Amino acid sequence: MSYFRENIEKTEDYVPGFQPEGADVVKLNTNENPYPASPKVLEAIKNVSAERLRRYPEPLGNEFRRAAGEMLGLSPDNIICTNGGDELLTMCFRAFCDESRPVAYPVPTYSLYPVLAGLQNCQRVEVGFGAQFGLPDGLVNTYAALTIVCNPNAPSATFIQPEELFALAKKLKGKSILLIDEAYVDFSEANCAGLAKDFDNVIILRSMSKGYSLAGLRFGYGIACEELIAGLMKVKDSYNADATSVAAATAAIKDQDYFKENIEKVKTERRRLAQTLGELGFTVPASKANFILAQCNDCDASQIYEKLAQRNIYVRYFNLPNLADKLRITVGTKEQNDKLISALEEIIQR
Amino acid sequence: MSYFRENIEKTEDYVPGFQPEGADVVKLNTNENPYPASPKVLEAIKNVSAERLRRYPEPLGNEFRRAAGEMLGLSPDNIICTNGGDELLTMCFRAFCDESRPVAYPVPTYSLYPVLAGLQNCQRVEVGFGAQFGLPDGLVNTYAALTIVCNPNAPSATFIQPEELFALAKKLKGKSILLIDEAYVDFSEANCAGLAKDFDNVIILRSMSKGYSLAGLRFGYGIACEELIAGLMKVKDSYNADATSVAAATAAIKDQDYFKENIEKVKTERRRLAQTLGELGFTVPASKANFILAQCNDCDASQIYEKLAQRNIYVRYFNLPNLADKLRITVGTKEQNDKLISALEEIIQR
Repeated sequence: MSYFRENIEKTEDYVPGFQPEGADVVKLNTNENPYPASPKVLEAIKNVSAERLRRYPEPLGNEFRRAAGEMLGLSPDNIICTNGGDELLTMCFRAFCDESRPVAYPVPTYSLYPVLAGLQNCQRVEVGFGAQFGLPDGLVNTYAALTIVCNPNAPSATFIQPEELFALAKKLKGKSILLIDEAYVDFSEANCAGLAKDFDNVIILRSMSKGYSLAGLRFGYGIACEELIAGLMKVKDSYNADATSVAAATAAIKDQDYFKENIEKVKTERRRLAQTLGELGFTVPASKANFILAQCNDCDASQIYEKLAQRNIYVRYFNLPNLADKLRITVGTKEQNDKLISALEEIIQR
Repeated sequence: MSYFRENIEKTEDYVPGFQPEGADVVKLNTNENPYPASPKVLEAIKNVSAERLRRYPEPLGNEFRRAAGEMLGLSPDNIICTNGGDELLTMCFRAFCDESRPVAYPVPTYSLYPVLAGLQNCQRVEVGFGAQFGLPDGLVNTYAALTIVCNPNAPSATFIQPEELFALAKKLKGKSILLIDEAYVDFSEANCAGLAKDFDNVIILRSMSKGYSLAGLRFGYGIACEELIAGLMKVKDSYNADATSVAAATAAIKDQDYFKENIEKVKTERRRLAQTLGELGFTVPASKANFILAQCNDCDASQIYEKLAQRNIYVRYFNLPNLADKLRITVGTKEQNDKLISALEEIIQR
């Protein structure tokens, strides 16, 4: 016999991206920011005292909520701190979904969504993106309690304009929560934070992992109307964000100058990488994230993946419908991208 | 209309203990360790590099699992890292409980259990402790999928011997998981870690908050057979423990000399405080935790609570059956305990 619930037994483990170690490795497979976090973050961490560690943290992470609210022009009451963006996803599944309350989302997208649906034992309504990764019309009529749109989408790096999501939120009002997963939005020109004020059914997910170079810190946050934030607070662990992470994330979000400079560096390399991949014969849709989904036209994506790995260069390959002819490549530093490009030139010429 | 599930709407927020601020405050209300963490913890935190923060953490916290396994004489595969002990509780509710799979536990106990049952929408079977807080016979026949025993129990500070929990685990085998919440066990003379090897249905919860003075860090862990750990891994967030916390918790658990010295200091003060409270007319059962549940005999517990608070001394008062005539007092430093004792002498003489 198993002690576990049947749906837990049936749920396949989420497989985190491979984390190769070594100084020689060019790691472009898990969408980390190639540049380090603001020096003010390390300073904030070094200043955490034994006394602050000894005591329970302030349970809501108000220090961060104030800083994020200020940056966004919103009240701290519109913000919830989470242990990584992933915890906000978990909280939304627990708050809105169950056996009679499905989740809906376009596919292909972030592979954690179906895992969380399995753990919560709720039905999944997966609506296929078209070839251009536009917003599928079918999302309006799913009867889902929770509708998720990852924007920019992973792994396509494509972006749906806020106006379109505004229209979707309006159609879903009174029927479904619209969760817009903006984990990668720091690399886009627009975002949907404004919708959180206008709608009682919109939640925006943000992450400090990518734009702020803090994947190791596990810090994310949600943006929504006060009523939704208050409800989500019930579902979170009492002290979900630790004292060190709150101090570090607050320092990071306050240093907007450093942040913007960092983002520009990534965007500059993104342009260059996209152009070069185009010249090498890949089809590269406009990326609004810190990665590129490059489609192989006269080549075999899985073979290129293997040959890159043999050279200690790691990108991501998904053997899935609509993705098996593509490689997802994180935008690295200039040096890393140069190594990737040289290797690709070599591989493709053979 | 509400977008939330009905059970979420109905669940009352968990109320964390009051966190008064100020240098004058004597804070004996939330069971923090009065002494700071090992200096090696602060050193480990200061040594966390920007590179480690930039990258995703190793997802299982293997560095800590190895150190904890070594300390316990168990394999790392018997350990799971969690974002505070509370996250392990949440994971167990999600893994084992649902509408047709109840949870059972003796009461009064940790007030988070009913909140988590509400969030998971599972039935609660609450079996009353007797006046002596011994293991209730009724726990064997509850048909629960998850049975929780907090040991030492909060807020009674009483301890059930491992032999009795061994017998309970045996009776529950094939029927229920037995989760032994050992958040306070570092202050006891015995513990149940050994049961995790002998039983396929026992999970031990540990916390770094109390014994290791790291409540601000949010780090706990579970101990169980490999099969249960593997199942629980599915339920955890992919990267639930951040890089800084793993480094800090590992440094803490490796410094057993510091830890043991710290525990002895708390125990010495616990003895003195218990004796003095007895002399002041309170009934004080033997405490195996870092707090004392003191029963007022000729006095009014809620009034004493108020009068202490007026003097900036905070203890915990629960207006609940079996607790309304008692105060839960965290064992503080010698200086803090002296202040409490002086204040109590003053209050009681009036």
